[in-house]
Amino acid sequence: MPSFSVLFLPDHKQAVIEDNETILHSIVALEIPLKASCGGKGTCNRCRVLLKEGQVRSVSTGKLTAEQQAQGYILACQSFPVSDLVVEIPAASRLSEHRVVVEDSTITEAEDSAGTGATGAAHAGADITPLYTTIDLTIPAPTLDETEDDLGRLCRAIRKETGIEQFNPHLDVLRTLPSVLRQADWQVTVALAEQAGGLLELADVQPGSGDKKHYGLAIDIGTTTVAAELIDLANGRVMAVKGTYNKQAVFGDDVISRIIYTTENQNGLQELQNAVVLTINNLIAELGKELAVEPEDIRTAVIAGNTTMNHLFLGIDPTYIRLEPYTPAVKNIPPLRAHRLGLQIHPQAWVHCIPGIASYVGGDITSGVLVTGMADQDPLTLFIDIGTNGEMVLGNKEWLISCACSAGPAFEGGGIRHGMRSMEGAIEHVTIAPESFDVQCQTVGDAAPIGICGSGLIEIISGLRQAGLIDRKGNFVAGLNTPRLRDAAEGPEFVLAWSGESGNMTDITIAETEIKTLIRSKAAVYAGIRSMLLMVGLAVADIERIIIAGGFGKYINIRDAINIGLLPDMPLDKYTYIGNSSVAGAKKVLLSKQAREQIEDIAAKISYLELSVGNIFMEEFVSAIFIPHTDPSLFPSV
Amino acid sequence: MPSFSVLFLPDHKQAVIEDNETILHSIVALEIPLKASCGGKGTCNRCRVLLKEGQVRSVSTGKLTAEQQAQGYILACQSFPVSDLVVEIPAASRLSEHRVVVEDSTITEAEDSAGTGATGAAHAGADITPLYTTIDLTIPAPTLDETEDDLGRLCRAIRKETGIEQFNPHLDVLRTLPSVLRQADWQVTVALAEQAGGLLELADVQPGSGDKKHYGLAIDIGTTTVAAELIDLANGRVMAVKGTYNKQAVFGDDVISRIIYTTENQNGLQELQNAVVLTINNLIAELGKELAVEPEDIRTAVIAGNTTMNHLFLGIDPTYIRLEPYTPAVKNIPPLRAHRLGLQIHPQAWVHCIPGIASYVGGDITSGVLVTGMADQDPLTLFIDIGTNGEMVLGNKEWLISCACSAGPAFEGGGIRHGMRSMEGAIEHVTIAPESFDVQCQTVGDAAPIGICGSGLIEIISGLRQAGLIDRKGNFVAGLNTPRLRDAAEGPEFVLAWSGESGNMTDITIAETEIKTLIRSKAAVYAGIRSMLLMVGLAVADIERIIIAGGFGKYINIRDAINIGLLPDMPLDKYTYIGNSSVAGAKKVLLSKQAREQIEDIAAKISYLELSVGNIFMEEFVSAIFIPHTDPSLFPSV
Repeated sequence: MPSFSVLFLPDHKQAVIEDNETILHSIVALEIPLKASCGGKGTCNRCRVLLKEGQVRSVSTGKLTAEQQAQGYILACQSFPVSDLVVEIPAASRLSEHRVVVEDSTITEAEDSAGTGATGAAHAGADITPLYTTIDLTIPAPTLDETEDDLGRLCRAIRKETGIEQFNPHLDVLRTLPSVLRQADWQVTVALAEQAGGLLELADVQPGSGDKKHYGLAIDIGTTTVAAELIDLANGRVMAVKGTYNKQAVFGDDVISRIIYTTENQNGLQELQNAVVLTINNLIAELGKELAVEPEDIRTAVIAGNTTMNHLFLGIDPTYIRLEPYTPAVKNIPPLRAHRLGLQIHPQAWVHCIPGIASYVGGDITSGVLVTGMADQDPLTLFIDIGTNGEMVLGNKEWLISCACSAGPAFEGGGIRHGMRSMEGAIEHVTIAPESFDVQCQTVGDAAPIGICGSGLIEIISGLRQAGLIDRKGNFVAGLNTPRLRDAAEGPEFVLAWSGESGNMTDITIAETEIKTLIRSKAAVYAGIRSMLLMVGLAVADIERIIIAGGFGKYINIRDAINIGLLPDMPLDKYTYIGNSSVAGAKKVLLSKQAREQIEDIAAKISYLELSVGNIFMEEFVSAIFIPHTDPSLFPSV
Repeated sequence: MPSFSVLFLPDHKQAVIEDNETILHSIVALEIPLKASCGGKGTCNRCRVLLKEGQVRSVSTGKLTAEQQAQGYILACQSFPVSDLVVEIPAASRLSEHRVVVEDSTITEAEDSAGTGATGAAHAGADITPLYTTIDLTIPAPTLDETEDDLGRLCRAIRKETGIEQFNPHLDVLRTLPSVLRQADWQVTVALAEQAGGLLELADVQPGSGDKKHYGLAIDIGTTTVAAELIDLANGRVMAVKGTYNKQAVFGDDVISRIIYTTENQNGLQELQNAVVLTINNLIAELGKELAVEPEDIRTAVIAGNTTMNHLFLGIDPTYIRLEPYTPAVKNIPPLRAHRLGLQIHPQAWVHCIPGIASYVGGDITSGVLVTGMADQDPLTLFIDIGTNGEMVLGNKEWLISCACSAGPAFEGGGIRHGMRSMEGAIEHVTIAPESFDVQCQTVGDAAPIGICGSGLIEIISGLRQAGLIDRKGNFVAGLNTPRLRDAAEGPEFVLAWSGESGNMTDITIAETEIKTLIRSKAAVYAGIRSMLLMVGLAVADIERIIIAGGFGKYINIRDAINIGLLPDMPLDKYTYIGNSSVAGAKKVLLSKQAREQIEDIAAKISYLELSVGNIFMEEFVSAIFIPHTDPSLFPSV
């Protein structure tokens, strides 16, 4: 098969590819972070690159404009080499680091003081019971009068200290146990790690008293971003937090594209697994470097991810998650050794995954519910995590119901031409003056605007409606006298920032079709909330508090979100924002035995409402494709 | 460092060795089975080889005679190359295959019909509950009305079939579970394997009904020999049995030499581990070849070995087994994966080791006690396993006491010039006519005699004493008129077979010093029995039955063993021989849940009497260094 050399600029990375391999495939292999929202199907237009030298065979030009094609743009996912190539990857086509919301400080401070368990570990603070814990022990030396073996003697000492009966010694511990005990003159530090079936592993025995530091990781694997906290297991302190985009993004923006990628590509599952493992390993390396922590000293990890992310992380076939009746392979994953998963921490470390509820309500949501405390409190609480999907849990200590609605990636910038994630230059706050239609934009980092992030999109729709620029259906009102409203090739659009003001010499606009997309997204979320309420025979007014989680939630203006009908019309003081509750819950589980018991109960207790079954959701959705709703009585304050 | 080429004949194997490496080291590396009873200390004279070409530097000539040295013999363990060499390894210095006693047929037939457990496995016979079991299942296909995952659905079906609550799925099972279930149209065969902490691992899921065969191994790791049984897990049938010598023999004949080898050689422990693993893997390969069984289809193994053998097999530091107060690292080893131990069966198979009692009473003895049934029966039973060590257990369902006496390797031919293991040409039965002193020898395989095995040694001493050739202390009686009694360089000796009759053109003799060695060995065994009885305030006459196990026991003449004072003077019908009870117990544990529970109880119940503590044993030993004993009332029938 003929193969050709391809040089990628400005990275100056080179690859040799066969004539049946796409340019995208080669870019992925070189780990150049390219956007490919649709997962290589030629529909999203994100992976466009500039052909500088050589010739390609493109099976499709997708949505590339004639102008772009004339400039030399090709779609990397649709193009195959027919000669040696030089390809430039423009900045606009690159995934770049963006703000990743980590734990909210209010949660960090509201440390669980409960959870003192039986381990009574000498090296862990009195109020924490971590998954990996160390104890100082002095063991009586053996005498001729007894036949106890070294292990038996050690276990007796641990039992005396902790009250725990059974231990499973690791072979590496047994192999050197006799010399360690004697060289240490019977004064040792013993490490206990929770493994499958609630069994405690005797994971390490070291001479002397344990002044050595051990760490744990709390990791949130999101479809878009991955966040990791490095935690000192002795005191539960978060040493550092890092977040980055999920390198799986080159295989598609949403879980469905990625599942399709695994089914349509022979090594697809392996590629997606490698991508997320690499993402996490890079975070671990950064955390380790910053704090001078050796990977070997990270002795356990807790993962909170949605169900698809868990499958992909573990290399488990995700095919049936997206096919009716939407059955995941596994919701409750047993602890696994780090080396089996390729995580670059101590190879024998146990990695625990937080149990999920259903194919589209995963461990990240269970984790969030744990953090809210709603599962053991009285008030009827609505917990919402809006990301690529909108996942919601409604209930209190008596019952909990959950659902997931395909909000689509619109609020994350997906399918919106000038949409982008929350990073420098993204318009995040907007006011539109009535009559003059003057626009005030506030951007992330106060930079010149280059696009619009989710919170900006909500404020734009709210602003356009309040200024009388759009009607209840999202159509631009005809006959208004402003140059900002104009007809473009793909229909009417509104200019938020002129090319002269923008950071990329382009008019930043929002099109009518995009407004419709956003209305459908917000309608899906609101219809999901209403469907759950109807299932349990309650009304919006019965909700006593609403807790919002996730990166998107951090920056949104609740008032505007109510105005457009995304969130229920409730007094603003009933709303709370709790940040990345997924990683916060993972941390709780890492540090508290009580939380570990609780999370199992929560996962078992939450029922799941499949919105695609029956007509309730569809009816609610149709009623919600208005601003704010077809039933104005639901939004009295608007 | 200078290095030289060495060619070994008749094997025609070649090695390059450095001038600080012994010839023995090189022979071991080439896996040529050389005798080295003392473990390379230059004292046993067994590793003598012929230097055919080249020159060596020998740091010792050990016990080589002047004649041997003149013939070109060197000790491989004491010689280093100073030029390229050609070395011949004579047959007499080679370890060779010999009779390995496996399970006795009486036990094979007395199959445990107890032990039906909760698993109710469709593929295992109704009366067996193996460590690895398969079940046929039909699983209801998922519907939109429920959110159960594939794993949950599978576990529910297993629970319904077996009543067992908790399972630990293997990652490999999870990875392909969705497609396996669907391709199989929800009709699958599930495999369950017992792992640590009594947890059941969900080890495999295959489409269809399970007509695939699965096997287990019962393995006895003896200091001298290793025996393995391949068992069909569906019906508990023993498919084949194989035994061979333990390849660790080149590192010393007894456990003490081997422990010393690990402490005195940097990679000693690794070498010993490799040697026994290779021994077992060769047996597995032979068994597999004979029966056309793939290694991957062997899904579990049970190991019964003495405490030192277990340490060496697992690569656990055995140093303190031989140092006061004789503390093993571990007596009760958790199940381990085959691949961690290098066993060439299914890599994920769990390997279970039978728990031991003390440093010198190991899992082989616990296994034997299980087989005897003495631990839940009334009669006061003495269980004796005489091998390199003499291990004994006394008791009944109320109590059990054990001890080990260093009988030394004499009965296995160790330290006896013409001593040998039980193989072709070994004198196993001897009669000596009074007055004429004519000797009748019967050999293994009726071949011309080339040495004497353990049973022969007992009959020789009994015969010499009965013929009036030796006195009660083992000294030859002076003034007897027979050419068979003569003075040699190392003292008086008796000729059993003249060079003309023998198979190796050598007079086969027994020396007075060797008789004394054998008397010390038998005295140690008898003193051990008496010490246990004294500890519990009982007399020899209180023993209701004696059960003899082990390879040595198979061929011995009990009457002669009583005559020389090795075994208690009891009616012969109180003696039973049960063959290799170590491997028989391993098989029981492999096949019966009840046996697995029982073996834990037995190991916990047996107390251990350390004979080196206090004076009881030493007094008994001194009293027993006579034929049959200083107290003739203990041997009324002699």
